Amino acid sequence: MKIHQTAPTPNCLRVSLFLAEAGMEVPRQEVNIRDGENLSPEFRRLSANGHVPVLELDDGEAICESLAICRYVDALNPTGLFGRSPLEQGRVEMWTRIVEFQGLVPAFQAFRNLSGVYADRERCVEAWGEESRKRLDEFLPRLEARLGESVYLAGDRFSVADITAWSLLAFMERVKFSMAHSYPNIERWRALVAARPAFR
Amino acid sequence: MKIHQTAPTPNCLRVSLFLAEAGMEVPRQEVNIRDGENLSPEFRRLSANGHVPVLELDDGEAICESLAICRYVDALNPTGLFGRSPLEQGRVEMWTRIVEFQGLVPAFQAFRNLSGVYADRERCVEAWGEESRKRLDEFLPRLEARLGESVYLAGDRFSVADITAWSLLAFMERVKFSMAHSYPNIERWRALVAARPAFR
Repeated sequence: MKIHQTAPTPNCLRVSLFLAEAGMEVPRQEVNIRDGENLSPEFRRLSANGHVPVLELDDGEAICESLAICRYVDALNPTGLFGRSPLEQGRVEMWTRIVEFQGLVPAFQAFRNLSGVYADRERCVEAWGEESRKRLDEFLPRLEARLGESVYLAGDRFSVADITAWSLLAFMERVKFSMAHSYPNIERWRALVAARPAFR
Repeated sequence: MKIHQTAPTPNCLRVSLFLAEAGMEVPRQEVNIRDGENLSPEFRRLSANGHVPVLELDDGEAICESLAICRYVDALNPTGLFGRSPLEQGRVEMWTRIVEFQGLVPAFQAFRNLSGVYADRERCVEAWGEESRKRLDEFLPRLEARLGESVYLAGDRFSVADITAWSLLAFMERVKFSMAHSYPNIERWRALVAARPAFR
């Protein structure tokens, strides 16, 4: 197995953290997105969605979409990070998706439409970038409220929903989408997650 | 258990089809989105993402996000629709997410920003609606290509990825985002899926 990745992107970080939590080592190959390496015909043949990360299996089959890679890894080597009981599984999937659709999607759309990095390969709409940034700002109080009522996002146990939220906040820091307010519950949770061996 | 839904929306359709495939009957309660019933404080307390569908459990806990509801139902009553082997689970998650992020997300963003239906509750950006519609048009040839190499989206077996693609195409028909070209593989697949008892 080999992972094709661009290390700092949120979806690649998510897979790296998941593998670290699972205690699995998989060789990595860096893909240079800024130079358009992901736009090559070879990469397009490998990755059905055209994006990193991609897990290439020994027989050449490839799985893209970060959560699909995590699911595959978890099916081979159960981690409990997708939840244990049916109810926990439902809660983990729910909070993972809330963070994705209300946090990661606006963050990506703000970055892609505003940063200029994608101007050579996408039709960018600045007004949507601005709107996405506002929606991201509006999501943070909801994340704060949730972490005021629950130790981890999906309940008392650490899960892939926390890995997803961590990847969002790491991305926000990296691209300088700073948090406009201070969020004590998010900071409480962040310190707790940062202390995990896989996150050091 | 009870499902709060707005029957024709793609995410509610997805849950209905999944339950029908699973052979489960769950009472439904209609929520009138156009009249803003989903904006009420009661609904906001129930639904962590503010959207339908929501599965309300007998103890009052609620699970929103359509795929989280399907996961919970599947954990209680295994359907195989999320894949059986680890590899099949990875493929199903991958194709489900490709259809969501490259098909459903642009379709929703086109509809929300262009139709006027959401103008009373969201800041709409028409240029992004137009761009999203183009991206949806660009996704269909990829779906066509995939269904030219595989019986179902994720392989030889029907899965939740097919339910997701079906829900996308049903939404496109309902809101009159017609397909600009004819796609023989999509039509071949559509006839196959339409013949399933749960889809009749």
